[in-house]
Amino acid sequence: MKKIAIIGGGVAGLSAAIYALRSGAEVTLFEQFGLGGLAATIDKIENYPSYSAVEGWKLASDMSAQAKALGLKTVRQKVLSLVKSDGGFDVVTANGQYAFPAVVVATGTSHNKLGIEGDYVGHGVSYCATCDGAFFRGRPVAVVGGGKTAVSEATYLADICSDVYVVTSRSELDAEQKATENLFAHGNVHPLYNTSVSGIVGQDGEVAAIELFADGKVDRLNVSAVFIATGAVPVTDFIRLDVEKSSRGYIVVDGRCETSVKGLFAAGDVTDGSLKQIVTACADGAKAGSFAAAYSATVK
Amino acid sequence: MKKIAIIGGGVAGLSAAIYALRSGAEVTLFEQFGLGGLAATIDKIENYPSYSAVEGWKLASDMSAQAKALGLKTVRQKVLSLVKSDGGFDVVTANGQYAFPAVVVATGTSHNKLGIEGDYVGHGVSYCATCDGAFFRGRPVAVVGGGKTAVSEATYLADICSDVYVVTSRSELDAEQKATENLFAHGNVHPLYNTSVSGIVGQDGEVAAIELFADGKVDRLNVSAVFIATGAVPVTDFIRLDVEKSSRGYIVVDGRCETSVKGLFAAGDVTDGSLKQIVTACADGAKAGSFAAAYSATVK
Repeated sequence: MKKIAIIGGGVAGLSAAIYALRSGAEVTLFEQFGLGGLAATIDKIENYPSYSAVEGWKLASDMSAQAKALGLKTVRQKVLSLVKSDGGFDVVTANGQYAFPAVVVATGTSHNKLGIEGDYVGHGVSYCATCDGAFFRGRPVAVVGGGKTAVSEATYLADICSDVYVVTSRSELDAEQKATENLFAHGNVHPLYNTSVSGIVGQDGEVAAIELFADGKVDRLNVSAVFIATGAVPVTDFIRLDVEKSSRGYIVVDGRCETSVKGLFAAGDVTDGSLKQIVTACADGAKAGSFAAAYSATVK
Repeated sequence: MKKIAIIGGGVAGLSAAIYALRSGAEVTLFEQFGLGGLAATIDKIENYPSYSAVEGWKLASDMSAQAKALGLKTVRQKVLSLVKSDGGFDVVTANGQYAFPAVVVATGTSHNKLGIEGDYVGHGVSYCATCDGAFFRGRPVAVVGGGKTAVSEATYLADICSDVYVVTSRSELDAEQKATENLFAHGNVHPLYNTSVSGIVGQDGEVAAIELFADGKVDRLNVSAVFIATGAVPVTDFIRLDVEKSSRGYIVVDGRCETSVKGLFAAGDVTDGSLKQIVTACADGAKAGSFAAAYSATVK
């Protein structure tokens, strides 16, 4: 019998559910918060193919409705641990444990926060240049962070925005030389080393400037947006299995979204995928849901 | 400067265009027919995440509009060849050749032929139920094939035609369980397993019957049309480059949708991807478009 668990109710998990349900599997989705995940919190999405613009909650609720109409069962509990069992896996919550022959992990990441974002997330504070950069075309923006992600976010923004200030507490950027060269080939990129962001200044509820702390004093810099690129961490701490991860802790998957543990699949931001977007998370989910459902039917 | 060519205007190519354009690249898309590709010909799509049901032409036209609004340039010409040049690649059409530092191939597949179609294509032999089904309203038709496409074509025809015979050399249909259930919920669908089509019988230049071969003998079945759904082959014959392909001729890509040729990317049905769906084609396109655009900026 086809039967799978999905852990995480963001778009990767919902897409996995849609595909597994359509293939005839019984699907139980574990999510402690509302369905839709990170995507549901995005103000305006312009890069999900077919929607020139759609609000995140709308996209998420449409996907939820689609999965529910196919018979999705949800369990509104935090998954405390995922362990190996005789016939497959046990998903453990505070209310008990549930047995499944195959499991899809779609728990995403949690962003490292600056701690000063306040209510500006979605109003000039963003964690994703590809998602939100186009909203600030021709305007000055700041990228906070000094690593690979910050360099890649800043490079993306340099083609779009008037000026890109890269604010980092380090004394240099820590990324591939080629990537850093590409970044500075843009004349409108201004690094601010040994500097931290100490505050956000708003106007009419939108970001208008940031406060910079360097050399013992505070300066003010006018920007329309702050892209925080101080990293994110994949949510995998509940997995009590010896599953292969990248050096940065992301779950390694193959072209079918299966992990190094037979019967364990992963999809979306929690994986080591090359591009983290809603459409790529959905595609991962389609693969993980399809192949996990097919695999579950082979378990005695 | 970011500048790429995309060859093929189906959903993979359109998604590649959306992502490349949003990253600031100049994008030229080559497509000899209308935009939307195979997806545009699908009657009803129920598994693109966020749409419980959408007509293929609608999804395709929404994606086209999204790409065009971002500044997509299209060239309505058949690409005769793709060759290596000094600075990258030359895309050759009957009207001349165009140079690009990076190229995304998104040409999809073309239908397999039975080899017995003769002059009946357009006179009762079709490769597209959505396109031609309505010509055979209330009359008996055959669908040849036993996979996902055959099931979807037969389901479409069952609502229109008096009887739908599904002829397959397999012993069962190989499609999503939900899709197969939907098909057989129609009382006028008749599967013919372990059977092949050995000939077409015409009358006045139109299909009148087919010859079926099963159990060592030939039978005749009166039908007004034959819809051929026996699969497809990747369209790669124009590529004059030593690019790695799978044993079945699909282009091998890595996790960033780059091929074995530096600067050459591929997306969608033409690749060796594990699942061939609209959402996976779109995700491929997002990766290929993003990474091709980024790569093009590094070429001197």
